[in-house]
Amino acid sequence: MTLATGSAVRVACRAGKLAAPTPGLAPGFVQANLVLLPRDWAFDFLLFCQRNPKPCPLLDVTEPGNPVPRSVAPEADLRTDLPAYRVWENGELVAEPTEIRDRWRDDLVGFVIGCSFTFENRLLEANIPVRHIEQGVNVPMYRTSIPCRPAGRFHGPMVVSMRPLSPEHAIRATTICAKLPLAHGAPIHFGDPAAIGIADIAKPDFGDEVAIRAGEQPVFWACGVTPQAALMAAKPPFAITHKPGHMFLTDLRDGDLERV
Amino acid sequence: MTLATGSAVRVACRAGKLAAPTPGLAPGFVQANLVLLPRDWAFDFLLFCQRNPKPCPLLDVTEPGNPVPRSVAPEADLRTDLPAYRVWENGELVAEPTEIRDRWRDDLVGFVIGCSFTFENRLLEANIPVRHIEQGVNVPMYRTSIPCRPAGRFHGPMVVSMRPLSPEHAIRATTICAKLPLAHGAPIHFGDPAAIGIADIAKPDFGDEVAIRAGEQPVFWACGVTPQAALMAAKPPFAITHKPGHMFLTDLRDGDLERV
Repeated sequence: MTLATGSAVRVACRAGKLAAPTPGLAPGFVQANLVLLPRDWAFDFLLFCQRNPKPCPLLDVTEPGNPVPRSVAPEADLRTDLPAYRVWENGELVAEPTEIRDRWRDDLVGFVIGCSFTFENRLLEANIPVRHIEQGVNVPMYRTSIPCRPAGRFHGPMVVSMRPLSPEHAIRATTICAKLPLAHGAPIHFGDPAAIGIADIAKPDFGDEVAIRAGEQPVFWACGVTPQAALMAAKPPFAITHKPGHMFLTDLRDGDLERV
Repeated sequence: MTLATGSAVRVACRAGKLAAPTPGLAPGFVQANLVLLPRDWAFDFLLFCQRNPKPCPLLDVTEPGNPVPRSVAPEADLRTDLPAYRVWENGELVAEPTEIRDRWRDDLVGFVIGCSFTFENRLLEANIPVRHIEQGVNVPMYRTSIPCRPAGRFHGPMVVSMRPLSPEHAIRATTICAKLPLAHGAPIHFGDPAAIGIADIAKPDFGDEVAIRAGEQPVFWACGVTPQAALMAAKPPFAITHKPGHMFLTDLRDGDLERV
């Protein structure tokens, strides 16, 4: 079995054979963030995503208690098909299981959210360097001073990811990413980190530092850690997310995310 | 006072001086559909919009009981700032008032939805003929056999608007509209009406028939009547919408709808 499609990756996870990070698997298939919340928190979170589409580009929402994301992977089961999960109670991380069948509740609503891997593929195809991939580390991510638009019980700062680029590459990356609003879309800032409240570019809040070379400027995108940070701040009694880097593989192809 | 901005139009409505259709007013300012629903129907409708973004391109959602759509018109009041409204009880139209202050409820959630006027402006700017505007009639609209993705209590067929175009103009219109997902985006069909369940192109379900000239084909866009049709089918106990053609004027400019 080769892990060359979204379906193959999910099947491997379901069989307990894959509990590893997913970057590089099933190239061309859309990988996604997952948030599961009880139904009585779902309206607030759906509204949070609608009001903050760049950090929270929503791909699909499941019916309460139904683990099948019909729009993006009609044969998937969210209880088994990710490599690893995080279980949260009152905003605290309490477990990191590899499947959640015994923790499933019939009031859980699933939110499948686009992630940056889709646009990173496109940058690489365009011969634009993606520094953290070159250096074999996690992308650097930072809390900013940019507040998300609050919705119900959810609020918090926008978290951004950073990729250093030359101006020429930054301009090309902007036009490429602008076609992918469901994978965060165009960057939201470039240049001075302090302008968005980042005190030290060398000390990311999440992920790893990367080298910024002469002639490059840091370019910042809205990041899918934002909804997780909002979740931790809102402290719902129960929530499940993907484990960072251990994404949900959909049946969508990267090209499906070009919204028209 | 000239009705040259979104704000000026709203002020005129608020003062009881404007109860007319809004096409042609405040050129360049985004006009929008309005749906107001009780809070306990709001999750279903928000999900319906998220699942059907082409007919229901959501621009803003208000807090329950708060008539101010802060994201698109922070000085507006949805109770007074439209030229005319429709009040629905159990799916039946019961009144067409020019303001709704005395009907307002503190549990109402407002949904401001993009409309086709924005892309029609762009087509005209590109010298692409818009037939119903040429003929001075309402755009023809049709129920189709394309089902919307259901959400909670909301379901129903996609309703489309139709504009006849030459192939050259249809191609240009497609690229123009693809940049405006918040104004319904690119067309969803062209050519044979029967392929989408339209029995007679000369007999629209809403609006007026228009002439299709030699060399032209009908081109179909997802239409903002779709959510109204879903509302009529779901029969919530109470709902308020704009009166067709009597849109809500926002402070957004057409160019703000180019999503990145």
